[in-house]
Amino acid sequence: MQVKGQTWTYEKKPVILGASSIVGPEEGEGPLAEDFDFIYDNIEINEKTWEKGERRLLEDAARKALEHASIKEEDLQFYVGGDLMNQIISSSFAARKMGVPYIGVFGACSTSMESLAVASMMIDSGAAQYAMAGTASHNCTVEKQFRYPTEYGSQKPPYAQYTITGAGCSVVSAQGDGPHVTHATIGKVIDLGVKDPFNMGTAMAPAAADTITAHMRDTGRSPGYYDLIVTGDLAAVGLPIAKELLKKEGIAMEETNFMDCGLMIYDRDRQKYVLSGGSGCGCSAVVTYGHILKRMKRGELHKVLVVATGALLSPLSYQQGESIPCIAHAVSLEMGG
Amino acid sequence: MQVKGQTWTYEKKPVILGASSIVGPEEGEGPLAEDFDFIYDNIEINEKTWEKGERRLLEDAARKALEHASIKEEDLQFYVGGDLMNQIISSSFAARKMGVPYIGVFGACSTSMESLAVASMMIDSGAAQYAMAGTASHNCTVEKQFRYPTEYGSQKPPYAQYTITGAGCSVVSAQGDGPHVTHATIGKVIDLGVKDPFNMGTAMAPAAADTITAHMRDTGRSPGYYDLIVTGDLAAVGLPIAKELLKKEGIAMEETNFMDCGLMIYDRDRQKYVLSGGSGCGCSAVVTYGHILKRMKRGELHKVLVVATGALLSPLSYQQGESIPCIAHAVSLEMGG
Repeated sequence: MQVKGQTWTYEKKPVILGASSIVGPEEGEGPLAEDFDFIYDNIEINEKTWEKGERRLLEDAARKALEHASIKEEDLQFYVGGDLMNQIISSSFAARKMGVPYIGVFGACSTSMESLAVASMMIDSGAAQYAMAGTASHNCTVEKQFRYPTEYGSQKPPYAQYTITGAGCSVVSAQGDGPHVTHATIGKVIDLGVKDPFNMGTAMAPAAADTITAHMRDTGRSPGYYDLIVTGDLAAVGLPIAKELLKKEGIAMEETNFMDCGLMIYDRDRQKYVLSGGSGCGCSAVVTYGHILKRMKRGELHKVLVVATGALLSPLSYQQGESIPCIAHAVSLEMGG
Repeated sequence: MQVKGQTWTYEKKPVILGASSIVGPEEGEGPLAEDFDFIYDNIEINEKTWEKGERRLLEDAARKALEHASIKEEDLQFYVGGDLMNQIISSSFAARKMGVPYIGVFGACSTSMESLAVASMMIDSGAAQYAMAGTASHNCTVEKQFRYPTEYGSQKPPYAQYTITGAGCSVVSAQGDGPHVTHATIGKVIDLGVKDPFNMGTAMAPAAADTITAHMRDTGRSPGYYDLIVTGDLAAVGLPIAKELLKKEGIAMEETNFMDCGLMIYDRDRQKYVLSGGSGCGCSAVVTYGHILKRMKRGELHKVLVVATGALLSPLSYQQGESIPCIAHAVSLEMGG
């Protein structure tokens, strides 16, 4: 591997040998439904608690990714994963079931690309032949943990986001066919003082802009290099802010398609439910591993930069009057050699 | 890097260029007091909340590790860290202050060696010239989050452990003097069904034994290769169980000194306070980065295996009737080339 600034270049160009996306009923009604491997028809995910449901999504996704990668369970060497639950229990309990050496990570909703960046480092460095990255979120587990009791049904402001129910995993390897992981830009914690925990888009936009700026600087690229640059998840409020901040940095985002996973996953006419758009660890994971990789394999996209954003607050840090520290990790995906 | 089974061999043998250990007043009264860089005389760590105190310990430790490594703040490229707080806020807020690209990790009390293993992979793979690993814990933040309101002063059974207040960081690099990181064995999640969240030693001992067994199998070593094998933290209850389990696996722990960080950090005559011994992310960090590295530099120890253990439960997983999934990550440290 090589490093320049915040950006790693993977010299072996690890391949995403197989990936998976399993979602809940609401995500299954959205425009990307056909790209998901399985859609549960109930928000309980056939389990007795939402937390067990979230874990089941992740276990399903892990199994499906192995199947798509056409490798045996015993050939998987490491699992790198995390989620939004306190003490990342969804990932740790899924890792218990998988029975492979496990690196738990946490980057809130940036976990999707943090885990892929670390798993790809294992492949590139020779630390693994096969490694899995994965994450999950569930609307009700997150509402309950971060906001109000779910049954309370409290109203949220229109700039709030809606945590998606879903899990995505990928198996990376040094050899094989599939999109390659070519670079990762590891984010710094950026905090411009936003304190409203419903306003994640505004809080996270500067982190996304900072990481995209670093990626372009470190690689000498401009946005036009990519067919698509996608954040996850700034939604309707954060994406225009990120565009504006990047414009001030002289980064010409108009050269490319600049989209957001939280805006892609739901029909926009469902806005009264999903407010400014989707969020949660699972959102950028299922959009990337479901939708984007399939478009890459169909030849519709060749070069994509996925910029997963995370808000690193806890209910306690908010209660103690702290602002919201945010981060974004970017991973560059390319088809072909 | 090379991988065999669960074990990485670092071919460049990353050097721990500098390390630090900052502790609270109770740890400062223990037998290792002289080895710590700074001892706070108040459990509040000069802050208004315990959480801010925990973060301050980590920020102090990060600064001190850079100082000991004799590198400038701007030369540090990545920080790998985590802690026990929900959403690892101590690490994320410390990373905000440090302003470097940040990989958040979580392995409960195994975070100390998980972060060192990942930071060392960055060095070995060329992903960084300088990377920091770090973690922290605070007795009162953990009591409050995982058990009862701290002011309630509830009694605990004698087999419970006492979370230490302290933080430890290390700066790893490809070049320089100091102990080398030669191998890491990444643990699997092991869960033999223990459900009592006070009985962490019993829950974690099988994970420690599993990782030590994997390490010996993967490296072809026997315990006698090491001057010291130290777990963190099984304490008085878990250590004998791990010994017994290893005996059944045919691993001759009597060949070496087999100790536990949780037993080393406090005077044993303080048992009525610390029960079966210390625990917490900070425990194995300050014992390793404070005490053990200093003994290595003085020539008293040449080869040490640190086996950090973590209980990956959350209060919620316990409330939902789940048993305790545990993990242990081992890192091998050697003086000289």
